[in-house]
Amino acid sequence: MYERVWTVRFSDTDPFGIAHYPRIVDAIHETSDMFMQEIDFPFWELSQQRGFGLPLVEMNFEFERPVEAGDEVTIELTPNLGNRSVRFEYVARHNSKVAFSGHEQRVCAHRGGEGSRELPDDLRTAMAEYADD
Amino acid sequence: MYERVWTVRFSDTDPFGIAHYPRIVDAIHETSDMFMQEIDFPFWELSQQRGFGLPLVEMNFEFERPVEAGDEVTIELTPNLGNRSVRFEYVARHNSKVAFSGHEQRVCAHRGGEGSRELPDDLRTAMAEYADD
Amino acid sequence: MYERVWTVRFSDTDPFGIAHYPRIVDAIHETSDMFMQEIDFPFWELSQQRGFGLPLVEMNFEFERPVEAGDEVTIELTPNLGNRSVRFEYVARHNSKVAFSGHEQRVCAHRGGEGSRELPDDLRTAMAEYADD
Amino acid sequence: MYERVWTVRFSDTDPFGIAHYPRIVDAIHETSDMFMQEIDFPFWELSQQRGFGLPLVEMNFEFERPVEAGDEVTIELTPNLGNRSVRFEYVARHNSKVAFSGHEQRVCAHRGGEGSRELPDDLRTAMAEYADD
Repeated sequence: MYERVWTVRFSDTDPFGIAHYPRIVDAIHETSDMFMQEIDFPFWELSQQRGFGLPLVEMNFEFERPVEAGDEVTIELTPNLGNRSVRFEYVARHNSKVAFSGHEQRVCAHRGGEGSRELPDDLRTAMAEYADD
Repeated sequence: MYERVWTVRFSDTDPFGIAHYPRIVDAIHETSDMFMQEIDFPFWELSQQRGFGLPLVEMNFEFERPVEAGDEVTIELTPNLGNRSVRFEYVARHNSKVAFSGHEQRVCAHRGGEGSRELPDDLRTAMAEYADD
Repeated sequence: MYERVWTVRFSDTDPFGIAHYPRIVDAIHETSDMFMQEIDFPFWELSQQRGFGLPLVEMNFEFERPVEAGDEVTIELTPNLGNRSVRFEYVARHNSKVAFSGHEQRVCAHRGGEGSRELPDDLRTAMAEYADD
Repeated sequence: MYERVWTVRFSDTDPFGIAHYPRIVDAIHETSDMFMQEIDFPFWELSQQRGFGLPLVEMNFEFERPVEAGDEVTIELTPNLGNRSVRFEYVARHNSKVAFSGHEQRVCAHRGGEGSRELPDDLRTAMAEYADD
């Protein structure tokens, strides 16, 4: 799996001192961006250079424990590969306890909205290194 | 149900001219805030004055059609009342077609994290006006 | 001048119950977007249809009084027209007292970064209606 | 001075492929948060534990060159110490060229809005290590 540490910032927090939900979603989304860069298929190059994208069709998250400013939250991303889609599965922990978890379902789509296509082999291979066996 | 119109802004949009997902989540979250203000239980008063909150425990959204800058998106919120929780159900449409939909599951919790409690009667009554029969 | 009301949301606020600065900047920026739509030159149409843009080259804001969730903040925007640029001057008030004020300096630029140009006459005329005499 | 690298993300970018201004402001603000953590006076501890804060009273930024998704932007922060205030001066470069620069003026204020006070000696000492001679 891929892993990064998100430090919750003062500007992410609410009157109770815990992170606002939209700021958690920002951190999750940033993690997908960092992962795609890590495997050398950054979102910002996919469409221009490869003619396809991975638009989000569903997101589902559960929030189990709040996180506070200064918390170092380990966010794991595991790609679960389909034929024409990929599910990014997330687990975020603080002090080894799950803070939030969930997934983003993404389809492999031709540029310009002409429908889905199979995941290209090189992208599949790159993602497979981070997938569960 | 409760309804508001969200105008997608230039600053919400990505290199394809469509709204970034985190900005859609911002708009959904803002809708819950506007609804609570509409029924006279604004989020910013709940805890201080009433001693309870409605923390989010789950969010689940599907994205069916992208939205673009200038689009006027009608976001409907229907509260689905439980005993100790409430589900905010959302349907967002542009030109009468569903753009995204989903729900936020919220529990009624004592302030300070001491566990859940029943929805207060006056809050239940206020929300019921916007619920499906 | 142009005027809109910004309601500070719970999700904009910090541990002291006041709006985070970046969220205030979001509100200011949204105001420029709403103004351009009001005068029928929305940002999202400028470049595609007219071949020029109004990129921001400077922003300068002062924060005099904090704003809280639920505050209805009146944000005024007055365009101050130059030859090849326009300054959007802002004053934001809550309960008739200035909360924050400042300006955005924008240049009129050819699409594609080929340098500045004079403000087109129709845009100048549309903005002039909201300018100070 | 203090320095961090900000990677511009796909979700920060606009229809021209460049970062939206509010997302640049987010990155600047995050830098101040990282700096305060670095010198062991994180924003989230100041008020609770020390009884004072550093509210922002002015921000002034110039945008010289746009930045794109994937750009690694080096943001430098140099504190310029006053008696009862501190100015955080920023210069952000990409490929050694200035992309944006400016400052945040912050006052040292007693908690609860009871006016300004001198910067505490230990905070002054900690910041001075990053100040210009």
